[in-house]
Amino acid sequence: MYVVKSPLSDADLKIVGEALQGALVDLIDLSLLAKQVHWNVVGSRFRSIHLQLDEVVAVARVHSDTVAERASALGVSPDGRAATVAGASGLGTVPEGWIKDADAVGALVSALGAAITRMRGRVEATEQPDPVSQDIFIGITADLEKHHWMFQAENV
Amino acid sequence: MYVVKSPLSDADLKIVGEALQGALVDLIDLSLLAKQVHWNVVGSRFRSIHLQLDEVVAVARVHSDTVAERASALGVSPDGRAATVAGASGLGTVPEGWIKDADAVGALVSALGAAITRMRGRVEATEQPDPVSQDIFIGITADLEKHHWMFQAENV
Amino acid sequence: MYVVKSPLSDADLKIVGEALQGALVDLIDLSLLAKQVHWNVVGSRFRSIHLQLDEVVAVARVHSDTVAERASALGVSPDGRAATVAGASGLGTVPEGWIKDADAVGALVSALGAAITRMRGRVEATEQPDPVSQDIFIGITADLEKHHWMFQAENV
Amino acid sequence: MYVVKSPLSDADLKIVGEALQGALVDLIDLSLLAKQVHWNVVGSRFRSIHLQLDEVVAVARVHSDTVAERASALGVSPDGRAATVAGASGLGTVPEGWIKDADAVGALVSALGAAITRMRGRVEATEQPDPVSQDIFIGITADLEKHHWMFQAENV
Amino acid sequence: MYVVKSPLSDADLKIVGEALQGALVDLIDLSLLAKQVHWNVVGSRFRSIHLQLDEVVAVARVHSDTVAERASALGVSPDGRAATVAGASGLGTVPEGWIKDADAVGALVSALGAAITRMRGRVEATEQPDPVSQDIFIGITADLEKHHWMFQAENV
Amino acid sequence: MYVVKSPLSDADLKIVGEALQGALVDLIDLSLLAKQVHWNVVGSRFRSIHLQLDEVVAVARVHSDTVAERASALGVSPDGRAATVAGASGLGTVPEGWIKDADAVGALVSALGAAITRMRGRVEATEQPDPVSQDIFIGITADLEKHHWMFQAENV
Amino acid sequence: MYVVKSPLSDADLKIVGEALQGALVDLIDLSLLAKQVHWNVVGSRFRSIHLQLDEVVAVARVHSDTVAERASALGVSPDGRAATVAGASGLGTVPEGWIKDADAVGALVSALGAAITRMRGRVEATEQPDPVSQDIFIGITADLEKHHWMFQAENV
Amino acid sequence: MYVVKSPLSDADLKIVGEALQGALVDLIDLSLLAKQVHWNVVGSRFRSIHLQLDEVVAVARVHSDTVAERASALGVSPDGRAATVAGASGLGTVPEGWIKDADAVGALVSALGAAITRMRGRVEATEQPDPVSQDIFIGITADLEKHHWMFQAENV
Amino acid sequence: MYVVKSPLSDADLKIVGEALQGALVDLIDLSLLAKQVHWNVVGSRFRSIHLQLDEVVAVARVHSDTVAERASALGVSPDGRAATVAGASGLGTVPEGWIKDADAVGALVSALGAAITRMRGRVEATEQPDPVSQDIFIGITADLEKHHWMFQAENV
Amino acid sequence: MYVVKSPLSDADLKIVGEALQGALVDLIDLSLLAKQVHWNVVGSRFRSIHLQLDEVVAVARVHSDTVAERASALGVSPDGRAATVAGASGLGTVPEGWIKDADAVGALVSALGAAITRMRGRVEATEQPDPVSQDIFIGITADLEKHHWMFQAENV
Amino acid sequence: MYVVKSPLSDADLKIVGEALQGALVDLIDLSLLAKQVHWNVVGSRFRSIHLQLDEVVAVARVHSDTVAERASALGVSPDGRAATVAGASGLGTVPEGWIKDADAVGALVSALGAAITRMRGRVEATEQPDPVSQDIFIGITADLEKHHWMFQAENV
Amino acid sequence: MYVVKSPLSDADLKIVGEALQGALVDLIDLSLLAKQVHWNVVGSRFRSIHLQLDEVVAVARVHSDTVAERASALGVSPDGRAATVAGASGLGTVPEGWIKDADAVGALVSALGAAITRMRGRVEATEQPDPVSQDIFIGITADLEKHHWMFQAENV
Repeated sequence: MYVVKSPLSDADLKIVGEALQGALVDLIDLSLLAKQVHWNVVGSRFRSIHLQLDEVVAVARVHSDTVAERASALGVSPDGRAATVAGASGLGTVPEGWIKDADAVGALVSALGAAITRMRGRVEATEQPDPVSQDIFIGITADLEKHHWMFQAENV
Repeated sequence: MYVVKSPLSDADLKIVGEALQGALVDLIDLSLLAKQVHWNVVGSRFRSIHLQLDEVVAVARVHSDTVAERASALGVSPDGRAATVAGASGLGTVPEGWIKDADAVGALVSALGAAITRMRGRVEATEQPDPVSQDIFIGITADLEKHHWMFQAENV
Repeated sequence: MYVVKSPLSDADLKIVGEALQGALVDLIDLSLLAKQVHWNVVGSRFRSIHLQLDEVVAVARVHSDTVAERASALGVSPDGRAATVAGASGLGTVPEGWIKDADAVGALVSALGAAITRMRGRVEATEQPDPVSQDIFIGITADLEKHHWMFQAENV
Repeated sequence: MYVVKSPLSDADLKIVGEALQGALVDLIDLSLLAKQVHWNVVGSRFRSIHLQLDEVVAVARVHSDTVAERASALGVSPDGRAATVAGASGLGTVPEGWIKDADAVGALVSALGAAITRMRGRVEATEQPDPVSQDIFIGITADLEKHHWMFQAENV
Repeated sequence: MYVVKSPLSDADLKIVGEALQGALVDLIDLSLLAKQVHWNVVGSRFRSIHLQLDEVVAVARVHSDTVAERASALGVSPDGRAATVAGASGLGTVPEGWIKDADAVGALVSALGAAITRMRGRVEATEQPDPVSQDIFIGITADLEKHHWMFQAENV
Repeated sequence: MYVVKSPLSDADLKIVGEALQGALVDLIDLSLLAKQVHWNVVGSRFRSIHLQLDEVVAVARVHSDTVAERASALGVSPDGRAATVAGASGLGTVPEGWIKDADAVGALVSALGAAITRMRGRVEATEQPDPVSQDIFIGITADLEKHHWMFQAENV
Repeated sequence: MYVVKSPLSDADLKIVGEALQGALVDLIDLSLLAKQVHWNVVGSRFRSIHLQLDEVVAVARVHSDTVAERASALGVSPDGRAATVAGASGLGTVPEGWIKDADAVGALVSALGAAITRMRGRVEATEQPDPVSQDIFIGITADLEKHHWMFQAENV
Repeated sequence: MYVVKSPLSDADLKIVGEALQGALVDLIDLSLLAKQVHWNVVGSRFRSIHLQLDEVVAVARVHSDTVAERASALGVSPDGRAATVAGASGLGTVPEGWIKDADAVGALVSALGAAITRMRGRVEATEQPDPVSQDIFIGITADLEKHHWMFQAENV
Repeated sequence: MYVVKSPLSDADLKIVGEALQGALVDLIDLSLLAKQVHWNVVGSRFRSIHLQLDEVVAVARVHSDTVAERASALGVSPDGRAATVAGASGLGTVPEGWIKDADAVGALVSALGAAITRMRGRVEATEQPDPVSQDIFIGITADLEKHHWMFQAENV
Repeated sequence: MYVVKSPLSDADLKIVGEALQGALVDLIDLSLLAKQVHWNVVGSRFRSIHLQLDEVVAVARVHSDTVAERASALGVSPDGRAATVAGASGLGTVPEGWIKDADAVGALVSALGAAITRMRGRVEATEQPDPVSQDIFIGITADLEKHHWMFQAENV
Repeated sequence: MYVVKSPLSDADLKIVGEALQGALVDLIDLSLLAKQVHWNVVGSRFRSIHLQLDEVVAVARVHSDTVAERASALGVSPDGRAATVAGASGLGTVPEGWIKDADAVGALVSALGAAITRMRGRVEATEQPDPVSQDIFIGITADLEKHHWMFQAENV
Repeated sequence: MYVVKSPLSDADLKIVGEALQGALVDLIDLSLLAKQVHWNVVGSRFRSIHLQLDEVVAVARVHSDTVAERASALGVSPDGRAATVAGASGLGTVPEGWIKDADAVGALVSALGAAITRMRGRVEATEQPDPVSQDIFIGITADLEKHHWMFQAENV
């Protein structure tokens, strides 16, 4: 059995490990969900939103890799398999089929909003046990809130 | 209701649409599954396999985008959401937790093998109805078989 | 008199040569027509369509060069002069003067639709006489259908 | 006291120096004003205008550096401090707070329009005293008029 | 009806607009004509001329875009459609079919010569009404005369 | 009226919003002030300081964009207009006209010193209400203190 | 003994494997032969042909790697050793020593002609057993025929 | 005597200065030690570890520069001379001469483990006196722990 | 005898040809003279001036190529041979041997000053006969005056 | 008959020419042999060796081009045809078919060892007759010995 | 026990091995010492010297890697550990703490002077036993002497 | 008076200094002479030779900088002023005015031939006094002889 010599106590590791696993699932789901809308959006704003969503996908992919590798670095096996994501994501889902541009923007406002609330919880939860992981969550939150703003500004 | 003027007949479109949707699910699953092993592999070959898996992820992501956009181009709404992938993928799954290097290689040989068999079926199925989609499947198969070879050669 | 030793029989060469010449004219016209709209489009979607059209221009220019050089490679002199394009293009024309954004999108949907129908005919016609030329037409069709989708999705 | 050996007569230098100082102030103000709207624009065209404004900022920054260094090269100390810009700019201002997309476009049409009128005056004023500075103003005018067109075309 | 607030008077605009439209047609035709020779040239100097012609094409494409957008910036709708180019170009034409290298060089000397004469006329015509457009024509003339020299030097 | 769903309480938002607005004004002023000295510095160290100041400008521009967009992301409209900067900056000013190299360095030591004191106040003020904004201020402080050191070291 | 689980039946594999091995040998020989002429060509067209031949070398090297790895991917060990190439190539040879430019061009016309005939045979032979390998041969044929044309056009 | 106007109190500066000096020594030693193993490793995993160690060297070099310049920015003279590093490093040493691959990995696991423990102490020590320096230590710790994981995973 | 069909009359050509030949000689001499000082400068400002001079060299080389090719384009054979440059340059010379930094700066101020005076004469002389050549001289003058300023500012 | 005016005497030229021809044959064979193993290697170290061999191929290709062009530069016609390489190489051969990773490494150790011995002989032989060619052989030897070391270190 | 089959005799290897080990120690020490001054230099020439020293560091790092790998290639284990460098370097040391710019330049003149004397001894010592290593020492000496010149020229 | 502490004895320095000064003059002259022909060549091979000459110019410029800086590094002031080059170059001259392509090639064969003979003399002369300078001359000779071959091969 593989055991990493973790720099954290068991109690701290449990808190941090759960935060990282939760973030991983949310971020993978965000990348899949943004791609889904990227392919299915229709309406006069198609091209703009189509491109904007690929930036969300890129951000979500980079951050999901960071949190998964952070979990591994602490000795916690990350789980980013499809079924795990489908079962545990906290982002809600997007409807099947074509989606009108305004609805597409709304879907992202909603998904990013949910992701932010949960990520801010992780920032708080990990402050004491592991400032290194906290710093990663802070950086992710900044990016999510930036994209959240841009989609909100678009549906005015 | 959004309707693309498809260049294919309804019958042909049904065959091609199913092939594209099936390929999309397999390729997204391949990208998730390869990332999962990328994070969880352990053993003396860790670094080599860790890097190799990111090449599989990159290939799977590029091709999944191509097949999804091809479906949209034919007027078929693609579905790449987490639950759809979890439910419909034909690649089998990888075990939870850390995975020894030889097992990691074996898991990829198996997943790629399953993906190839299904992709070759799509090459055959789409030859008559849509040589454009077939050409995409042929290109994907070439890449999958190349990676399949490299993992097989590694487990000798 | 310059004579290339063509790898095709005279009968096959006639079919393939006509397909290549037809494609050349359509693709040059597409590049001119897309530039025309790129300069003349007005309306709130101006910038998005202006940029999108330059992608169409780039695709059309690359493919027109490929089909013209393919004709030369088979010993058939390609003709891409302005008068030939003006006389033989199958894409219809775009109106003179400023064009509103929705009309601009509609003009591209129409021009790309015409180009696709003709290009698919060439895919079929060249399958037997020259699979090498057919493969080029297949690749062009994929690109045209992708852009066709994006303009259609924008006018919903 | 620092004195550059200027290639111009005192009378010519006065005209050219004032033209350069005036252009500097306008261009810095344009860069600040375009950034202001870049951050505050809301509405369905948010993303397109947000990106477009950063191109204006980039152009304004490059040109403001050129005219300031041109002034220095002629021995005239350029003044681009905040208070000078706030006091001397001829571009008008943009309102405080969030700004709707159509209003944002309108604000730029107006600011660019004012900048162009003044810049054309400098082209005329400097023709005799310094064709080198005139050439710089001509190039700036070309860029301003190009952006002016694009914002005008967007508010149709 | 779309109306740009032009910085020029109506009389000046007429002169400048005609100059820009004329330049647009010549430059598009030059790009088509140079590509035509690029594909059809034969003879021992094939490769050198084939490559040289693509540089002419690149120059002609960049400048045609600049003059068309300059027309739009002044509120004059540019017309670069195939039929317009075929009907209004002042460059003469190139013969159908394969063309020997020395003839290819001669054809370019002739086409560039015609383009230069007309472009120099535009430099003169626009000096008073619009030095900004004049500056663009001056830059184009410099490039055309450079290429003209190189083809002339080659046919000695 | 545009309202972003801010992740912060009203009380926290007030503190953080003021910190971001204050930082925005200081950073824009720093960019203008550093450019002013960049153009007006004279003396044997001219070139070195001229180049060094452009690095300060680049840093100030990047950070001003980040804090303005952070304000927008929290639903606070940022104000970076010339008059606002002229009125609210806490950096002091630089004298009109040419500036000797040693004075130029001294002016930057002073401006950066003022900016740092204020930025450290923002790091402290935002720790509780918004660790995400605090992290941005920490990064900015690091950069400002690095440049502060380099100018101090130069005036020994 | 190493055994790849080939996606092809034994009969199909035999046909495809022979085609790939034959292509490998031809392409390596083409790369060596083109380099040989690259070094030994003399005459007034030296530089042009010298550069052109390096493009042939680059194309031949890339394609030889592709077909060899394709063979490995199907479980067929590729053989690209010097003696194998010397014994089995179907391209003929080039004479020892310096070679005049016109003869150099003629040698390439002849070698490429032989390579094309054989490659077209492989396109035909692999259509049924393995469309994936066929697609690779089609792409190679397109490149060879393009270079064949350019050398033919040069010897007119 | 050169005195930087430090933003920290003397008491805080002492704590932070010692932390930065300690980090500097550890990071330089890590870069030397990783290079030492990079050159001396032998065994079947030679190439993989040889490359992996250069990534550690790059990370250690970048971070050592950052902490040294941070010390300077606070007015504390950094000391990274060979004798200081040899005397004060907390990483232990690596044996003289060739080193088997598994031992090489073990040596890095041990050195990185020591570096991490000490770096985490600095994160804690600097939280109150200087969050800016703390943020730097947090970033370094994240990188060290990532590399620590990868070497641990390799020796399973 | 080689004769280019010049777009200028004989009288105009004489004026423009002399201006271009004069500029060529000055610019080549400037490049040689700046390199000379680049190698021979000594003193505490060595590195700064050494680098600055290479920027002058780069500018002088680019412009000398432009004016020489402009002469060729007009059918005037340019002469940039060493003896011609040594005999006809209007820049004065720099002393043999090592040169102190302040003297180096002074030498460049003097050489650039001479070059500018002559170049401004060419701007004036060519305005009527050839605005295309004039535009080139204007651009060169702008660059020379920029460098002139920077060296002057350095010797305060 | 083509005769280069060689800078060497006939006697020296004979020695140097033979050394260059011998090096050419060895280096081409090394590139072919390394590619052969690149395609045929199997075993757990597959990926690492597969990549490492492409670095050997790249080095061998670059150096073979250098020595062949060096021969041409001295007036000696180089011979790098397949049959010449097969007949004259001094590197031994590699077995047909799949090759286990340890054997692959051994094969390279052996081939590189042979190449080095011969190359060192050429360094010695050419010192007097042509230090320019000797310098090339010295550089090649350094590269070969570096790769030799890495393969040796891998088979411990 | 690991034994490389060295191309040198034992006697030659001893000489060359000592030269390489000595060079390694000097070059690592040079890189540390130059970084030390890079961080601690103060005075009006701070920025110029700060940047110049990073070029020395870069050169020293590249060359130290080359000589260490050269030692390994010959079968001699290189030793670049901190204690070895501290004990065996022949470069002298630099003082603790801040260092005035003129002293910084002087310290580098001295360290480079010492390094050059020793490196020239190695060029001489290795000429007979190993011209390959000698060639490396020659290249290093050229770089060291270039930097030595530049620092000397700066302290005039 | 500036005195570099040269690593060479006075006698050796005299020999090496003269060799470097001689090489400097030849290489600058080669760069001027090649540019002269680059601008004046006419004939059907114009474009090929025009491009080839710019490669000679680039090589000559890089090497002239290297030998001049090498002289400075040894404490010998280099002299690359126009009059020195005109007076001391050993390359002969090229005729005034337009030059036919075959004559252009002949002029380069002659100039490069003269340069090579002199450079080989420097290789011999500096072997004992300074192997570092010799190594530079060897590298230059290799480049000159390569270009010499290519021009010779072209005039067959």
